[in-house]
Amino acid sequence: MQETQTEAVRARLYLDDLHAGQRFTTGSYAVDAAQIKEFARAFDPQPFHLDEAAAAATMFGGLAASGWHTAGITMRLLVETGLPLVGGIIGAGGEISWPKPTRPGDVLTVFSVVEEVIPSRSRPDRGMVRVRSETRNQRDEVVQVLVAKLIVPRRPT
Amino acid sequence: MQETQTEAVRARLYLDDLHAGQRFTTGSYAVDAAQIKEFARAFDPQPFHLDEAAAAATMFGGLAASGWHTAGITMRLLVETGLPLVGGIIGAGGEISWPKPTRPGDVLTVFSVVEEVIPSRSRPDRGMVRVRSETRNQRDEVVQVLVAKLIVPRRPT
Repeated sequence: MQETQTEAVRARLYLDDLHAGQRFTTGSYAVDAAQIKEFARAFDPQPFHLDEAAAAATMFGGLAASGWHTAGITMRLLVETGLPLVGGIIGAGGEISWPKPTRPGDVLTVFSVVEEVIPSRSRPDRGMVRVRSETRNQRDEVVQVLVAKLIVPRRPT
Repeated sequence: MQETQTEAVRARLYLDDLHAGQRFTTGSYAVDAAQIKEFARAFDPQPFHLDEAAAAATMFGGLAASGWHTAGITMRLLVETGLPLVGGIIGAGGEISWPKPTRPGDVLTVFSVVEEVIPSRSRPDRGMVRVRSETRNQRDEVVQVLVAKLIVPRRPT
């Protein structure tokens, strides 16, 4: 379970190269208050994402990143250092939850595990892989769980 | 089912004001190629989100927005004109899918329906509401379905 994926991370993986239990770990990403507010102004303009004083009076008790910001950072980590899939990371959808908010000063890392590999019955050139990705902060607290269905090409025969 | 929510949209709704079947429609948001590329550079730097020519050679067949960009735009529409909840829109999580990509020139609108209202057993001051939000483009094609669990305060007694 603790095997490193150094070679795999350098390679470009086809569906045929994936198996349940395979693990991938990304690099890390530091989040600051300015980034949290900039994302919020563009996509989630609510007081607890925009302003420290206003946030203190809400159930967050202080500035917190939008969950969609955490999702965006997670995606960037997966794309750059996480899942080296042929054709890129193309999600059909998935389940997402945010057990805790991302805070200013957090450093996020994404830990992924392949849960299932599902060849397509109708399209022999591709399949789906279900991947569970936990985004954790520097205290190892989980700020996001994403179970995503990704479309992955099969190795040409 | 077709009742308008004009009054509700102006009001600030508590959990007690919500019921299954209640509908909300947002304003609209126009997406262009520059926005798609800017989001992608920050959060999803893959060729089909960054460059028209590179995108043409992928399964997208042309520039497409990151699904997380569609999610961000959906959130902005919900916050500004969609779901007038007391305390704001605070998601614990949900299910998301992207049946089609958002393209440059698309104009998105979000159509939401309350699916279930669930008072908390342990916390009498709040509850959860499950809301299904379809994000549609100007051709009425669904580009995202989000079924979100939101935390909503109860009206103080």
